[in-house]
Amino acid sequence: MSAIDETLMTNIEALLPFIKEIDRLKKVERQALIHNGGRRENSAEHSWHLALSVLVMSHASEQPLDICKAVKMALLHDIVEIDAGDTFVYSETSKKKETELAAIHRLTALLPANIGNEFKNIWMEFEEGISKEAQFVGALDRFLPIYSNVLNEGYSWKAHQISEARVVGRNKPSVLKGLPALWPIIEKMLTKAVQLGHLQKD
Amino acid sequence: MSAIDETLMTNIEALLPFIKEIDRLKKVERQALIHNGGRRENSAEHSWHLALSVLVMSHASEQPLDICKAVKMALLHDIVEIDAGDTFVYSETSKKKETELAAIHRLTALLPANIGNEFKNIWMEFEEGISKEAQFVGALDRFLPIYSNVLNEGYSWKAHQISEARVVGRNKPSVLKGLPALWPIIEKMLTKAVQLGHLQKD
Repeated sequence: MSAIDETLMTNIEALLPFIKEIDRLKKVERQALIHNGGRRENSAEHSWHLALSVLVMSHASEQPLDICKAVKMALLHDIVEIDAGDTFVYSETSKKKETELAAIHRLTALLPANIGNEFKNIWMEFEEGISKEAQFVGALDRFLPIYSNVLNEGYSWKAHQISEARVVGRNKPSVLKGLPALWPIIEKMLTKAVQLGHLQKD
Repeated sequence: MSAIDETLMTNIEALLPFIKEIDRLKKVERQALIHNGGRRENSAEHSWHLALSVLVMSHASEQPLDICKAVKMALLHDIVEIDAGDTFVYSETSKKKETELAAIHRLTALLPANIGNEFKNIWMEFEEGISKEAQFVGALDRFLPIYSNVLNEGYSWKAHQISEARVVGRNKPSVLKGLPALWPIIEKMLTKAVQLGHLQKD
């Protein structure tokens, strides 16, 4: 949890290009709306929301988590969208992997190697989705846009004609892996959304 | 770093009101622009930028830091603005403290007590500005809007007729406390901004 690096202490300026570059994530629009509507969410504010949700929901995790690592994952998980753009969770995405991999290399190369490699490894770990932290953050990353739709009358579901069956098919496996106790709550939300006409059944 | 709480595991729903409520921080506008201009920054995306800057710049800290705590501070430091709004760093702010204190009580009361108290304590520690993490995060919180102005031709400095002397007076003490090696770099930036006509001298 502590960091002293004598060689870097003299070279703060080497850290600035990355801090400048990541600002561009604030311009990447997602399909989700912010909860009180009005405009689409961007990936920077989504990442903040996810990181804070990780802190909160970690208290509901059935297994112990390295929370600090999970929060770092949340902060870093979308930075590749600066180059690759946001991919809607229901899209077919043949070239996504490739573009995002190139992006993580470009972005982390802006940093001194030790920090760049740490960030790259955290991002890779999230992408692989094998560690419990990756699965936990992944589950919440799926939950937030569902919750946004629930709170915004199914905005992006309607816009893309997404059915309940597709929401379940696309998200249930990830949620069950990372935070299984969340799934019944999502299921209740989806049932209600169908009843309200915010989500089509099939 | 690990969290298992048997009593909370059955009650994820108790965690949702907070996750819903904090979404409103995405609607709080700051004086700073996002770096490539076009619109003002909101406090949610700023908090993400600050948290990631904390991760990066911790490598330049002269003293060991509890990075996980510092990142939590960055994520939480502005949530009170949901009720209190953003206060421009150069404003006179007689009632700010009071409003923000009421806000942190209201927001953390949305959470189960153990989590709410943890968040309140982290926010208070940042506000007090005594711990090394609070001072470090505070220094970067001052740096980012300066950097934004440097990258946006002094947008909010010009809009509010802020002089170099005021930027120095308002920010130098905080930066020197939290990350002293950053100050000479800021000083160079300010000198250049004056030369370019983006910042008035007095």
